[in-house]
Amino acid sequence: MPGKVKSRGAIVAPPAATMVEVIECVPNFSEGRRKEIVDAIVAAIMSAPGVKLLGKEMDPNHNRAVVTFIGPRLAVAEAAFRGAEKAVELIDMNVHKGEHPRIGALDVCPFVPIAGATMDDCVALARSVGRRIAEELGVPVYLYAEAATRPDRRRLPDIRRGEYEGLKEEIGTNPDRKPDFGPARLHPTAGATVVGARPVLIAWNVNLATKDVGLARRIAKAIRESSGGFPAVQAKGFELADRGLVQVSMNMLDYRKTSLVRVFEEIRKLAAQEGVEIADSEIVGQVPLAPLLEASRAHFRLTGFDDAQILELRLWE
Amino acid sequence: MPGKVKSRGAIVAPPAATMVEVIECVPNFSEGRRKEIVDAIVAAIMSAPGVKLLGKEMDPNHNRAVVTFIGPRLAVAEAAFRGAEKAVELIDMNVHKGEHPRIGALDVCPFVPIAGATMDDCVALARSVGRRIAEELGVPVYLYAEAATRPDRRRLPDIRRGEYEGLKEEIGTNPDRKPDFGPARLHPTAGATVVGARPVLIAWNVNLATKDVGLARRIAKAIRESSGGFPAVQAKGFELADRGLVQVSMNMLDYRKTSLVRVFEEIRKLAAQEGVEIADSEIVGQVPLAPLLEASRAHFRLTGFDDAQILELRLWE
Repeated sequence: MPGKVKSRGAIVAPPAATMVEVIECVPNFSEGRRKEIVDAIVAAIMSAPGVKLLGKEMDPNHNRAVVTFIGPRLAVAEAAFRGAEKAVELIDMNVHKGEHPRIGALDVCPFVPIAGATMDDCVALARSVGRRIAEELGVPVYLYAEAATRPDRRRLPDIRRGEYEGLKEEIGTNPDRKPDFGPARLHPTAGATVVGARPVLIAWNVNLATKDVGLARRIAKAIRESSGGFPAVQAKGFELADRGLVQVSMNMLDYRKTSLVRVFEEIRKLAAQEGVEIADSEIVGQVPLAPLLEASRAHFRLTGFDDAQILELRLWE
Repeated sequence: MPGKVKSRGAIVAPPAATMVEVIECVPNFSEGRRKEIVDAIVAAIMSAPGVKLLGKEMDPNHNRAVVTFIGPRLAVAEAAFRGAEKAVELIDMNVHKGEHPRIGALDVCPFVPIAGATMDDCVALARSVGRRIAEELGVPVYLYAEAATRPDRRRLPDIRRGEYEGLKEEIGTNPDRKPDFGPARLHPTAGATVVGARPVLIAWNVNLATKDVGLARRIAKAIRESSGGFPAVQAKGFELADRGLVQVSMNMLDYRKTSLVRVFEEIRKLAAQEGVEIADSEIVGQVPLAPLLEASRAHFRLTGFDDAQILELRLWE
């Protein structure tokens, strides 16, 4: 058994570098009360072949719906456009009211690389879908986040300043508010749209076997970017009174910049310095496979492991 | 962030309990020298829609070929039958010679549950493919391993006793050698076939940061089933002279019976008792996703985690 070769016989097809193409798209629409409108938009999205619906949330106070779907890039591009088209048809921003800031019927539409696609791919996708929305639907489009064309358009609040009502006044007169694509005037009913690309967010809580919430807060401060910790990590410390534990609650904004394995080890180390152990951790909602496989590698100290060795993934080639 | 709900909004479709159906099939054919014959058999297998070829090995000394493919059950059943049919057409056991024991053109054909299928599913598959091979091709079929109908047919060497030449004499006269399906006489050119179901084997080496090969041997002895250790674990200790390490080399014969995480922890503990650390480990060849995800869960001490949270896996629903 020693000197076992790293492959049991010739692999016929060389494993593809990327085995599956999964891009997530999370469009936000300015309708959170009339279910039939949201259903019609979701139906339009799902009419594009090859996409999978993951979620649909309606918030009546925000008067906003968030739809989540995944698929390969061309499928996701077509689905996003069809959702935009239906929203432009059915939503009138002149009568829209809600607590959440917004500038249009399809208010914002991010593309998120999950597997087999890079951030650059998603930036290209955002630009091409944004251009199509502008050209075919007559809606002005702003590019944001990683797809932004100027620094003052990276953040949504900057693009949404003044909201639908304020932008209506400014878009034609203030050159800083000229859209990236389409006319320098709002669509008469659908307003404007923000399209972009961003990394996937992982919501992750690590629970510590202590009642000392101060420790959770100190660790949160040590690891979060805003206090000089790890890039792309948001963290806060909380008490979990019902469990007799404390929690470091995190948003991992880009696991490729700061890995979960690295942060877990840092929390473990900082807690151990005060004689406290990690009780457990929980991932809230969705997570890509990659950070989980990184933990597998770390756990077994795997060397020379290739994802192409994973049997299920071969089906995707 | 505390009290974050476990799902960000309603998941529209409830996650399926099993998200993808992957069964592996590893037929062994009695031809390891003439590439054109093996290529024709592989082409017949791949003519069944929905299967993916993972490997093709020819061994001229054994005069034997091993083909590995995966797919959902009906696809795999059809592909296995087409391979059998082509082998019966092209291979003549009366002129076959090779070092490896064998009784037929398609010598043995195991079905292996990888994901979304149980061992019982693979047993049912083995029986239905076995019956079809007997009925349509006139080849006697023995069921082995988990699909065996009697204890003396669980192990291949028992079924292959006397090989092609010996079985030819005995099959019609010894009731213990009556096949499970088909005639009690060998096919005139294709002999007999063994079909069955078995768990996936994971070849895994854990390397220890010591030159004391005795420690690797003691640990191997402590963990292997044959010396009273973990069920379904084979292990041996070796020296890795070129790396200045020693190795516990394992075949994990059924990770559902004994998990890799459990064995890794045991090796870590036994080595630590002698002041030695695990240097690294390597998985040789293929591995299902499940034991890797178990390591992710262990590493992060994840609670309440559901594979349906993994974005890529949602594409499979």
